[in-house]
Amino acid sequence: MEFSYISHLECPKCHETYSENEINQLCKCGSPLLVRYRLHDVKANVQKEDIASRENSLWRYHEVLPVKDQANIVSLGEGMTPLVPLEKLGKKIDVPQLYLKDEGVIPTGTFKTRGASVGVSKAKEIGVKQLAMPTNGNAGSAWALYSAKADIKATIVMPKDAPKITRKEVAVAGAELYLVDGLISDAGKIVGGLIEKEGIYDASTLKEPYRIEGKKTMGYEIVEQLNWEVPDVILYPTGGGVGLIGIYKALLELKELGWISADKLPRLVAVQAEGCAPIVKAWQEGKRESEFWENSETAAFGINVPKAIGDFLVLEAIYETNGCGVAVSDEDLLQVQKEVAMTEGNFICPEGAATVAAAQMLRQQNWIKESDKVICLNTGQGIKYPDSVSLENIPLLQPNQPING
Amino acid sequence: MEFSYISHLECPKCHETYSENEINQLCKCGSPLLVRYRLHDVKANVQKEDIASRENSLWRYHEVLPVKDQANIVSLGEGMTPLVPLEKLGKKIDVPQLYLKDEGVIPTGTFKTRGASVGVSKAKEIGVKQLAMPTNGNAGSAWALYSAKADIKATIVMPKDAPKITRKEVAVAGAELYLVDGLISDAGKIVGGLIEKEGIYDASTLKEPYRIEGKKTMGYEIVEQLNWEVPDVILYPTGGGVGLIGIYKALLELKELGWISADKLPRLVAVQAEGCAPIVKAWQEGKRESEFWENSETAAFGINVPKAIGDFLVLEAIYETNGCGVAVSDEDLLQVQKEVAMTEGNFICPEGAATVAAAQMLRQQNWIKESDKVICLNTGQGIKYPDSVSLENIPLLQPNQPING
Repeated sequence: MEFSYISHLECPKCHETYSENEINQLCKCGSPLLVRYRLHDVKANVQKEDIASRENSLWRYHEVLPVKDQANIVSLGEGMTPLVPLEKLGKKIDVPQLYLKDEGVIPTGTFKTRGASVGVSKAKEIGVKQLAMPTNGNAGSAWALYSAKADIKATIVMPKDAPKITRKEVAVAGAELYLVDGLISDAGKIVGGLIEKEGIYDASTLKEPYRIEGKKTMGYEIVEQLNWEVPDVILYPTGGGVGLIGIYKALLELKELGWISADKLPRLVAVQAEGCAPIVKAWQEGKRESEFWENSETAAFGINVPKAIGDFLVLEAIYETNGCGVAVSDEDLLQVQKEVAMTEGNFICPEGAATVAAAQMLRQQNWIKESDKVICLNTGQGIKYPDSVSLENIPLLQPNQPING
Repeated sequence: MEFSYISHLECPKCHETYSENEINQLCKCGSPLLVRYRLHDVKANVQKEDIASRENSLWRYHEVLPVKDQANIVSLGEGMTPLVPLEKLGKKIDVPQLYLKDEGVIPTGTFKTRGASVGVSKAKEIGVKQLAMPTNGNAGSAWALYSAKADIKATIVMPKDAPKITRKEVAVAGAELYLVDGLISDAGKIVGGLIEKEGIYDASTLKEPYRIEGKKTMGYEIVEQLNWEVPDVILYPTGGGVGLIGIYKALLELKELGWISADKLPRLVAVQAEGCAPIVKAWQEGKRESEFWENSETAAFGINVPKAIGDFLVLEAIYETNGCGVAVSDEDLLQVQKEVAMTEGNFICPEGAATVAAAQMLRQQNWIKESDKVICLNTGQGIKYPDSVSLENIPLLQPNQPING
């Protein structure tokens, strides 16, 4: 029994292969690399029923994760986030089987932690001492904190409009932080320049192959939490799209492992904001790649990504599962954010709220059926986005002043 | 097999009993009430080994929780928070077996969620339609969100200096929010006036008997996560002290259940801030109750409680376990907060940091031995306290401007 059944890295475009024991970034052809496993051997040695009694973190799926030596795992107890039924809201929007996969309940408070835990662990395993990345905030804070634990030096570049709290997280972790008067694409260029000059590890989205392995565990967990049944629809707030690519990869692996039945995959939905919807536009036009979205703007800052390097993989996942792309207005998603809190008690982030708003739209269009089991992915806590809630007319009392007195 | 083995409510001071099926607040004698269970029947019907395969939330201990009908549970997937070894820091402060029980990894981001989930569930079960409470912030946000899910109207009163983010949480939940230009004791008086006038449920700390039942699950979890072994020391940041009372109650129940061996309990440590240390002072003076702490002030806002209604129960827990009380300076706890993040990757709250600072002090005094297994309780996420981290000299780059360029 091996801890990991990782086999090699493979380019999904040109099928060139690379070693998992050395530092690799993009393929020579420019495409991101994917991790491959000896799934046949996993199937022979592991039963899905074995998983239930394992530790309560994403590392319970260690055979299909890239870290070979358990000693290299950098963990703060991440994963196995709640899958909670939204009964009241589901009834209201006529989706009786509506669920929230709540990625706010995780160290650092967002799903970015999954990529950081697996990515940093593998970086440690292959000997990385220093890394750099551009970020819309949350990935930067997660990678900064996990890097601190792993004794890896981290350099983080984020737009000055990224959520303020993420600056604090990067700073408290002792990482090197830069702000940029621009978008994540501008931060990416700055990191690119640094990497070229200094030769340090590029931890940008999909420029290292392991973050996606962390993200894919969301797919494993959803299926395990539904007793190894797949749902009908999974809605995912799509910026870089790594989570959606990861969930699709997980579903294909689960099929090959025989842990889910082979005849049906959930329809995967890429949810974007109307102010930044390059993937949705490409899907509407039947294209395989997206175009740079000019002057992008949305309150759901985490999905303000004008052009994702893995766009072709996101679109493939949508096409192959008969999914779709949906754009939601900021007004709608902020309204739904309040509605979820007032109805279900979950203070979710604007990105997560976009998926619930999209579920409602797709139900109205009858693309989602009443009988469908529907998973909305909330990628983080509302408390990381305090500006998404406004406060008005909160009464200030003096000591001993009665309410309504 | 019953879902809950709750038997009745009992006054720990005068031993008067009350029904668990009706609304009860304090005992006639003024003391908080405690929940009693038919533990003998639990022992006969449940093996501790049965727990392992149950759902991953605090409701896995439902036999020793007060909710009789499972349908009344109001849950967002709370509990079973990580117990993570702090290896590097433990080595540094010469406590090799140092652990963090990380209550940041929970819906709403603090341990207050446990009390809210169990308290609101039981309130729903006994027919409460409206409740009110004073809060230092985090309990208010948790109770507001869980009340929203339970369709209970909540009125929350908090000091104007309470963490700003908690205002947003209360507001987004749709609860009624008041600020007071004073301390939580002032907020308590205002709520007291409202309760008297309006006759609604008083959800103040220990004025309803069920919050403590939620908090005690931290004790059950710590023991289960250590494979049903007790640690040597548990350090707890003490404001109202409900968690410490709850953990002590859990340990006594676990002993009676035979799920831990009867010969040893962990030494319980009440950690306070130097600017507000009434329990520590009472312990130093060998007293059974504390005195109101005048002009209290600390950066660890959640433990700024000048006089706790359950102080005598906290002190009993300390005395009975050969524990102690320790006060930490704001300077020390803020320094340790950074050190934990930079060394271990956990961005913990100031209150949680106080316990790590206290562990270091107690080790220096040799009150903690090198061989002790020591649990520090981090009651919440650092991100709820952005002001605890200062940002200085973060460089702002223009697009295309290289780092160090």
